[in-house]
Amino acid sequence: MTSIPETHRDLLENNQIVMLATIGPHGEPQVTALWFLYEDGKVKMSINEYRQKLKNLRRDPRASALFVDPANPYKTLEIRGTVEIEPDSEYVFASRVGAKYGGTDMREMDKPGEMRSMVTLISEKVHTFGK
Amino acid sequence: MTSIPETHRDLLENNQIVMLATIGPHGEPQVTALWFLYEDGKVKMSINEYRQKLKNLRRDPRASALFVDPANPYKTLEIRGTVEIEPDSEYVFASRVGAKYGGTDMREMDKPGEMRSMVTLISEKVHTFGK
Repeated sequence: MTSIPETHRDLLENNQIVMLATIGPHGEPQVTALWFLYEDGKVKMSINEYRQKLKNLRRDPRASALFVDPANPYKTLEIRGTVEIEPDSEYVFASRVGAKYGGTDMREMDKPGEMRSMVTLISEKVHTFGK
Repeated sequence: MTSIPETHRDLLENNQIVMLATIGPHGEPQVTALWFLYEDGKVKMSINEYRQKLKNLRRDPRASALFVDPANPYKTLEIRGTVEIEPDSEYVFASRVGAKYGGTDMREMDKPGEMRSMVTLISEKVHTFGK
């Protein structure tokens, strides 16, 4: 695992969203914004099983995550790697994510019977821009 | 070409950066932030020939562009499509981009002898989130 330079670690700590790029069914790129936690030195996301991006990641676990400094759009951090996907059927991880976002109950964001997984990005390359 | 819903067109007008996802040499996703113009209903970017993302786009012209409302990270616009690449050796387009960004002289961002191209995203699918 590649470590995050000290100069850009704040982007993981003061940010509300990550832009996650995945590979679609025909090898095309997709990018969406989502919530995340930075825990134990890793970027972790709670994703509903029915979302295209999770289907993409099950097919091809390669992903690229971009973080932009909310105060300076020219300071960015890109983490490229592969993801590990673990079921979170009891919303244990999702509730930790919800706590970061004003105590959001993530069950209320889903329909009855839907499932979530915890998606952890294992970094392989890190690119920083700006300072 | 798919049109942009009226509700999210402001993200193209009030934004300083676009997050552009491309496909790397091994089919992996990459995402970086860059400057753009929204001209004639199209997203256009000035990219240096030596950048990985332009090499990626020459190999595989499929791209996904994400715009996040600077005032509300939960309002986003994703435009998926393919790009057209035209040489901009005289910096004609680059100077229009520079004008948007405080009169930046984009030649000064490049090394002597480097080249730029104008990259136009032709939209095929549009996804909006939030309001």
